[in-house]
Amino acid sequence: MPGPIDFYFEFASPYGYMAACRIDDLAARHGREVAWRPIMLGAVFKVTGSKPNMAIPLKGPYLLKDVPRSAKFMGLPLKLPPRLPMNSLAASRAFWWLADDEPDRAKGLALAVYKAHWAEGRDMSSPDQVAEAAATIGIDPASLDVGIRGESVKQRLKDETQAAIDRGVFGSPFIVVDDEPFWGVDRLDQIERRLAGEVF
Amino acid sequence: MPGPIDFYFEFASPYGYMAACRIDDLAARHGREVAWRPIMLGAVFKVTGSKPNMAIPLKGPYLLKDVPRSAKFMGLPLKLPPRLPMNSLAASRAFWWLADDEPDRAKGLALAVYKAHWAEGRDMSSPDQVAEAAATIGIDPASLDVGIRGESVKQRLKDETQAAIDRGVFGSPFIVVDDEPFWGVDRLDQIERRLAGEVF
Repeated sequence: MPGPIDFYFEFASPYGYMAACRIDDLAARHGREVAWRPIMLGAVFKVTGSKPNMAIPLKGPYLLKDVPRSAKFMGLPLKLPPRLPMNSLAASRAFWWLADDEPDRAKGLALAVYKAHWAEGRDMSSPDQVAEAAATIGIDPASLDVGIRGESVKQRLKDETQAAIDRGVFGSPFIVVDDEPFWGVDRLDQIERRLAGEVF
Repeated sequence: MPGPIDFYFEFASPYGYMAACRIDDLAARHGREVAWRPIMLGAVFKVTGSKPNMAIPLKGPYLLKDVPRSAKFMGLPLKLPPRLPMNSLAASRAFWWLADDEPDRAKGLALAVYKAHWAEGRDMSSPDQVAEAAATIGIDPASLDVGIRGESVKQRLKDETQAAIDRGVFGSPFIVVDDEPFWGVDRLDQIERRLAGEVF
């Protein structure tokens, strides 16, 4: 049986949110599981020489139109958050704090953060905001607050981000299916056909 | 009757090639015409701080996989050219040399250059190579060679590129439908639904 599909994403990425809303169902239709892997795109940008989309002239203003439109096109709720990009450090550390022992809850937390940020337009930059989202799915906020301050969790996020870079990941979402890389929520259609066994 | 759809593109852009192969038919299905507008992305990059995709670490190697795969996915022929990116100055000037008096031939030349470069994998950087492609659609190579050296044609390309930047164009393909901007060949599906009258 093939291993899971690797789903790399950045919490500050709206297209990552859109992919997060679809990727599990898409994979399940073809009997596949998905390993969620949040990373810090800031570290990636140091390699690629890029910067957050919103800071890029012409592209930033365009994305303020494309993001709501693309969400609507996909049938997903979207409300632009007040702060772009959010600081995703707390959310990413919270994910990796849970990932090994409670992978389903880690995924649940990721979706809760993504929806609070991109569907409801709430800033999710602070540990308190992440803990609040965690509480809605039964995660103890106090434990999370302590957990994400641990050195091992901080190192884990760095290691996961570096491993992603070593694998060629340069954006969000970035999905790897059996060693084949796909960048962007626009590639879900290609992934679907590939999982259906089409060679193209 | 609404005006034409504006199709901005760079000859060195493979996704521009893919859009060029589809945009006229797509528009025609909805009774619309397309104004083709080649620009120099190099000038755009000075505004956005970006650079050619192939020069970006991680992204360059990815695109060597994504470009052939996306072409195959769309059912289009593709052979990677030896030189990436090509120098698109001669081809772009040739287009604007023809554009006012012979718009259909200008479009024919653009398609001929695009197909020679991206479907057949031939370098199209030199005026001689562009003239050769022009000859295949009945354009006199000697006239073209003289034409593209004229100051007014050189200025026209600069003006068209600046007008595109002023309108927010930052990549290729970039398609504007009734003042609404769409970036990327991945947006052809959204454009199709918009032209069909859907609001999303």
